Amino acid sequence: MDDAVAILERTPASLSALLEGLPKMWVTATEGNGTWSPYDVIGHLIHGERTDWIPRARHILAGETRPFEPFDRTAQFTESQDKNLGELLANFADLRRENVAALVRMNLTDDDLDRAGLHPELGAVTLGQLLATWVVHDLDHIAQVARTMAKMYTEATGPWSAYLSILRDRQ
Amino acid sequence: MDDAVAILERTPASLSALLEGLPKMWVTATEGNGTWSPYDVIGHLIHGERTDWIPRARHILAGETRPFEPFDRTAQFTESQDKNLGELLANFADLRRENVAALVRMNLTDDDLDRAGLHPELGAVTLGQLLATWVVHDLDHIAQVARTMAKMYTEATGPWSAYLSILRDRQ
Repeated sequence: MDDAVAILERTPASLSALLEGLPKMWVTATEGNGTWSPYDVIGHLIHGERTDWIPRARHILAGETRPFEPFDRTAQFTESQDKNLGELLANFADLRRENVAALVRMNLTDDDLDRAGLHPELGAVTLGQLLATWVVHDLDHIAQVARTMAKMYTEATGPWSAYLSILRDRQ
Repeated sequence: MDDAVAILERTPASLSALLEGLPKMWVTATEGNGTWSPYDVIGHLIHGERTDWIPRARHILAGETRPFEPFDRTAQFTESQDKNLGELLANFADLRRENVAALVRMNLTDDDLDRAGLHPELGAVTLGQLLATWVVHDLDHIAQVARTMAKMYTEATGPWSAYLSILRDRQ
């Protein structure tokens, strides 16, 4: 648990340090049609704080037998409208701080981590798996943001692109 | 140039926010034999600040016709000995600050960016390509650090691993 919290509580500052105040060309970069910009990713992380991780943890702890509410993977395209990146980063940091505090207050035991809930697509999952997924999901999106921005310079690196494996990830 | 500097000057704070004070299991994680931990990556970035980017830029601007000095990709395994991660992060931040200042002082023109140097393996490369590579190299290693830590929880995510593409990158 301490190891998981250590990552969860660092993600907002890490993304803010990477993105805050960057020129627009980086913030709106994508990897092509249907892929997300760093701006879109922060909106998606905000939606996860609101509707995914802690609500699902509570759902499991409450012993609910119906499946979790499905997660809306495109909510950020309507919810983030009219907000600038700085506002989104601050919003994400606030929500994450509250959610990490809520997680710590749950005082989860090993037995709690083994309790199961019903995922609408994946079937039975445990609370421990939910928390590990929260951590990996953060790291996945940090890597995505870095990869998306890197690809903006693919041409510009010239012959060096042969050494820069990130330019060929997820193609 | 401004776009490149915007990334270069943010990398140390982003890596510090992600890594500083993390439990050791994250900092020493690797993706398997012959791959690098977050600790190794910071040592490698330090060696690049000392011997790669700015020295090669100066080499090109000086009109040198001999190839660049080859870059030592394993220097961090001897140079970082006896230093903790906090020391390495602080060292990287100091060197990067000096190197970004040196880059800005070069006042590079478009003609300068088109000037060529000789890479020991890749042949002719331009100063503009060197600077774009510096930026992508930063982002590549940020993504690597996130990916390496994510893989520590592959098993722990259970059925959710199907949704977490980062767990299958670079396998």
